[in-house]
Amino acid sequence: MTARNDRKSARATADLVAREANVSRVAVSRAFNPNASLKPEKRDRILQIARELNYTPDMAARSLVTRRSHLVGMIVPDVCSPWESQEIDALTTALQAEGFATLLFKAKADFSMDQTLLTYMRGFNPDSVIAFTENVDADVLSGFLDRAVPIYVSYDDGAQFAGTSSSLYDRLLVRQRDGIEQAVALLQGYGVRRVAYLGGKRQSLANRERELMITKILVERGMQPPTVIDGDYTYDTAYRATLDLFRVEDGADAIFAANDVGAFGAIDALRHDLGLSVPGDVSVIGFDDIPQSHWKAYNLTTVRIDLEDRVRALVRLILRRLRNPDDGPLTETLGTRLVVRGTVG
Amino acid sequence: MTARNDRKSARATADLVAREANVSRVAVSRAFNPNASLKPEKRDRILQIARELNYTPDMAARSLVTRRSHLVGMIVPDVCSPWESQEIDALTTALQAEGFATLLFKAKADFSMDQTLLTYMRGFNPDSVIAFTENVDADVLSGFLDRAVPIYVSYDDGAQFAGTSSSLYDRLLVRQRDGIEQAVALLQGYGVRRVAYLGGKRQSLANRERELMITKILVERGMQPPTVIDGDYTYDTAYRATLDLFRVEDGADAIFAANDVGAFGAIDALRHDLGLSVPGDVSVIGFDDIPQSHWKAYNLTTVRIDLEDRVRALVRLILRRLRNPDDGPLTETLGTRLVVRGTVG
Repeated sequence: MTARNDRKSARATADLVAREANVSRVAVSRAFNPNASLKPEKRDRILQIARELNYTPDMAARSLVTRRSHLVGMIVPDVCSPWESQEIDALTTALQAEGFATLLFKAKADFSMDQTLLTYMRGFNPDSVIAFTENVDADVLSGFLDRAVPIYVSYDDGAQFAGTSSSLYDRLLVRQRDGIEQAVALLQGYGVRRVAYLGGKRQSLANRERELMITKILVERGMQPPTVIDGDYTYDTAYRATLDLFRVEDGADAIFAANDVGAFGAIDALRHDLGLSVPGDVSVIGFDDIPQSHWKAYNLTTVRIDLEDRVRALVRLILRRLRNPDDGPLTETLGTRLVVRGTVG
Repeated sequence: MTARNDRKSARATADLVAREANVSRVAVSRAFNPNASLKPEKRDRILQIARELNYTPDMAARSLVTRRSHLVGMIVPDVCSPWESQEIDALTTALQAEGFATLLFKAKADFSMDQTLLTYMRGFNPDSVIAFTENVDADVLSGFLDRAVPIYVSYDDGAQFAGTSSSLYDRLLVRQRDGIEQAVALLQGYGVRRVAYLGGKRQSLANRERELMITKILVERGMQPPTVIDGDYTYDTAYRATLDLFRVEDGADAIFAANDVGAFGAIDALRHDLGLSVPGDVSVIGFDDIPQSHWKAYNLTTVRIDLEDRVRALVRLILRRLRNPDDGPLTETLGTRLVVRGTVG
């Protein structure tokens, strides 16, 4: 009883378009393939008739002809953080405007991907793949891709991948230094002496690079390196780690969290469990600037990575690579800056 | 310099599998299609050799043969709320375990979809489509699907779709009554008299059905219908609407929000701008129970829709429909319940 058309009807319509336009079946296919040569007036006429007849080319069949699938694969973490969800959401909107659909694949909790999943992804023949789970080895991944070039995120001078084969792939370079330097200067200006770094997932490259950069800048500015406490980017772990920092360890004057959600956990532990004031007793700084960070309950001072900028840079990388499949590694660069709200003072 | 294999190598490998297994090229295709008949020992031998040779069938080619794309389309809103992001995330994980990749499509801000997008989606030939944007007309949508049956979310007795063609499609029925009844009973037990309903997006079916059910239960229990204030499911709009409710209108003893994020906006406006205590002066109840709701800054009492249950029900619907393409409309039902935390009292 459900409305359902037979696939044969779609094919019959393609023949009908050819007949009505008085062209071959092949010409109809070419009209729908931007890369195939065809006289402009002929293409326009075919597309016009196709519209009138409500004809759609079959993407699976088209993918075999054009070698383009119009799919962009995204390898996303097992469970996405609010920041990642937002990025997937915004990227999907931007890619759709460029004619690509987004195909999601989940990595495992430990950031790896199993071979079955990679085999599976290969079968869909994506035009491009964005590896959000930065610790998927680029060589393993690209062995499973027929045409797509993986995009990796790296940080500051990009030294993480220097000399490894990952440096051969396309990358988004995030300049963390600017935002972190502004944050440390602000803390120092308020007389903060003991800084704790509340980490993200241990396997995460972003986490490791944030810890390295914060340590480097503190030392450059004559301060002690941070006390490092383990987190995993979640609220609950950050909450418990903050309780431990103050009940078991010696506490701190400021907590610099690897992400905003961790900063929220720290703030709530300080205020609701430890009876401390933020920022009166302890300052807190986050990283990302997700929409929740301006909510009045937190009003978080944080290092912002502009999501719109980040999405535009990723889309540019994808389009540049598709236009120039044989170019060497491409790079897009993204800045960071401190957004000052109410948790430092 | 980037590692990239030629597509031809994948095809050659399929021929190689056939040669090594001493079978036809067609037999290799059949071995990878669970619906094609093939002697079990023959299939095992072919799959074994394929594994040894690292052969993967091409999904686009396979889709033409099997009429299955192994893609599940999700039509998601223009900008996703935390609840929707979480659901997309969890559904993708569950579908991947069943052998499906998730293909995301965005609807427009007004909940509609344009024809270009529908045409585009049709081209990918999804096996199933989940329409999160409940106001996409089912008949319009199914006209653009060749085999997939859309899944719609409906509420309580499902009367929203009775007599319309939407009642002919598969559906997830959310029983809101239980959770809302518990919420109203709790408010009444604390002596609340004037309830405000802080709405979600006006076009949203979930929003309309929540307003209707809350009104119905308040009246059934001898209370006044709620003051309705307009929201759009976002924090910022909820914040401003709550200020208006207390500064321009007569205020309320309790705010029942259409979603948790709206409840957070109401709580922050009450505490940080209006100088009122929650729950001392005003009680607040949300809807969804997203992870942020247990965060200490809010500690929100809310009507829970269990996300895991919801995802399992959607996956069951998809699998039942694929197994029985010609069955009449299928339904899965989901309950709600009140989670009591600290914002009513």
